[in-house]
Amino acid sequence: MDSRDSLWLEQLRDPDAPAARRALAKIITLLESTRPDHRERAGLLLDALLQRSGPTTRIGISGVPGVGKSTLIEALGLHAIAQGHRVAVLAVDPSSTVHGGSILGDKTRMERLSVHPRAYIRPSPSAGHLGGVASQTREALLACEGAGYDVILVETVGVGQSEVAVAGMTDLFVLMQLPNAGDELQAIKKGVMELADLIWVNKADVDPVATTRACAQMSGALRLQAGLRGGDAAQVQPISALKGDTLAQAWQGVQDWLAQRRADGRWLARRQRQNRDWMWERIHRGLRLAFEADPAVAQQLPDISRRVLAGELASSTAAARLLALHGVDASRLSPTPSSPAG
Amino acid sequence: MDSRDSLWLEQLRDPDAPAARRALAKIITLLESTRPDHRERAGLLLDALLQRSGPTTRIGISGVPGVGKSTLIEALGLHAIAQGHRVAVLAVDPSSTVHGGSILGDKTRMERLSVHPRAYIRPSPSAGHLGGVASQTREALLACEGAGYDVILVETVGVGQSEVAVAGMTDLFVLMQLPNAGDELQAIKKGVMELADLIWVNKADVDPVATTRACAQMSGALRLQAGLRGGDAAQVQPISALKGDTLAQAWQGVQDWLAQRRADGRWLARRQRQNRDWMWERIHRGLRLAFEADPAVAQQLPDISRRVLAGELASSTAAARLLALHGVDASRLSPTPSSPAG
Repeated sequence: MDSRDSLWLEQLRDPDAPAARRALAKIITLLESTRPDHRERAGLLLDALLQRSGPTTRIGISGVPGVGKSTLIEALGLHAIAQGHRVAVLAVDPSSTVHGGSILGDKTRMERLSVHPRAYIRPSPSAGHLGGVASQTREALLACEGAGYDVILVETVGVGQSEVAVAGMTDLFVLMQLPNAGDELQAIKKGVMELADLIWVNKADVDPVATTRACAQMSGALRLQAGLRGGDAAQVQPISALKGDTLAQAWQGVQDWLAQRRADGRWLARRQRQNRDWMWERIHRGLRLAFEADPAVAQQLPDISRRVLAGELASSTAAARLLALHGVDASRLSPTPSSPAG
Repeated sequence: MDSRDSLWLEQLRDPDAPAARRALAKIITLLESTRPDHRERAGLLLDALLQRSGPTTRIGISGVPGVGKSTLIEALGLHAIAQGHRVAVLAVDPSSTVHGGSILGDKTRMERLSVHPRAYIRPSPSAGHLGGVASQTREALLACEGAGYDVILVETVGVGQSEVAVAGMTDLFVLMQLPNAGDELQAIKKGVMELADLIWVNKADVDPVATTRACAQMSGALRLQAGLRGGDAAQVQPISALKGDTLAQAWQGVQDWLAQRRADGRWLARRQRQNRDWMWERIHRGLRLAFEADPAVAQQLPDISRRVLAGELASSTAAARLLALHGVDASRLSPTPSSPAG
């Protein structure tokens, strides 16, 4: 390992020191790089950091712009720190390349948390497509855990696929809602409620009557949905970033939810499934990229695609020809029934 | 091309002759084979047959066992033949390996259609996993079209993923229901109604009152669902295999639905999307199988998987190591934002 990298790992041993924060930032930047030498160093660093991780809690937090995510994450982060935790805040925002960082680009939105010595805030990477952003955030999450942060909050905006990605990298996925009926339909429409383990109805202090009504309506809708689809209904809770008691209740709700799932084995099963899925996702992605980068394939692909679209060439024949150009003899591959490729 | 294969193609020129049926059966058997020499011959035959296809209609028909699929498909097939069509009936049933062919294994269930010179009935292939079965059925469908059958009915049982596969290879996907409320919830629960373009409430002659009520309830539920998710609501129609008038109405409903979609371009767009998706699915499948069949990968996979599940090795590192064993340098692959792999 590079002497710089060894130094960074050494500096991370004392997570309270400013040098540790700088080292973590540099490691995450390396993880986000697409340069081959950076990727190689990043892989070694990540392996080393993985060995240092203790028990951690990964919480995904989603909600449409204006729902009050930043304010709540700051309040919740400070609450968790007061309970003895170290808190890292990450984000998955595939639009950040377009807008130049729409969420967490500006740390001033979490003024108190961002300067706290036991908190680390990192804006969304801007790799330009969701797969890349999600993958980089997953690695940043592992790096933060290796650097001593034991509560990881991953923020995302309400744009469908990014929520699937965040639910797939966290132990618990929270959807934030406002106490009005329009939002409720909106969330069901986009299928986001199916992902949610907990639902927090925010700004509960502004209109307590509307909040109570919204909570009851959502609980009813979720129970109906859970009954139809099978599975647990997400719990609905009122919350307010400005009121310490609802915040403490929400944090306790998270702890209780996780404790139950740790006890019955579902917490571990979810992490193992995520680890396995991430590995295969990376493998399949690598195979596809290598295929598309193959000059022999790239040369023939436009013409073959055109003939397939026009119905002149069977899709299977086209695939076999392109695979052959890539050195894969499709006719010699006969899968076993147990193959995950089935 | 093999002289046998040339003879088969020649025999298919006169689709009414018994030799044509035998040739088609042999070609489909070849398409279902996993032997490399068979696959190669099958590919050449399929290319030749594709050149012969005229305009065709592909209809998927699904419903739980007992809903009356066989009786209805026979009646509908005979009706279509009376209108001047040639009808092929295929099936996707991933359970057929287990049960020894649970649907269409027994042609006696469609006694009149199976002996009709203008009909061809083929049971589900039994490749043992859905991907294989679906892929073989798609190729059989193309072969039937090349052999002069212009109406293809693809039957499947109500088991979720097989319905997704059939909806993905047809122009129009019909869900058959019985006129009782239990079924209705069942279908929504499994997400099948989202796939349906048309819903036929079968055995409408048995209890006309219950049928009318069921149709109204389903229409309401579908309009609500379509409103929430965006898109068209499936049309609901009563039908009875025993009553010629409902059958003629149903067939006309199919024609009207297709005519509208041919006119507005959605029919062509759906076929093109299916052709492209099939090609990429075959390519990705081939890449994955080649990866898994690689002895260098197979040797290390169990140990690396174990370490990933245990959280000892980052998923990304594990993927990069396995890819390297397969000759793919993941660090050198940087995707462009337009890449379909994203």
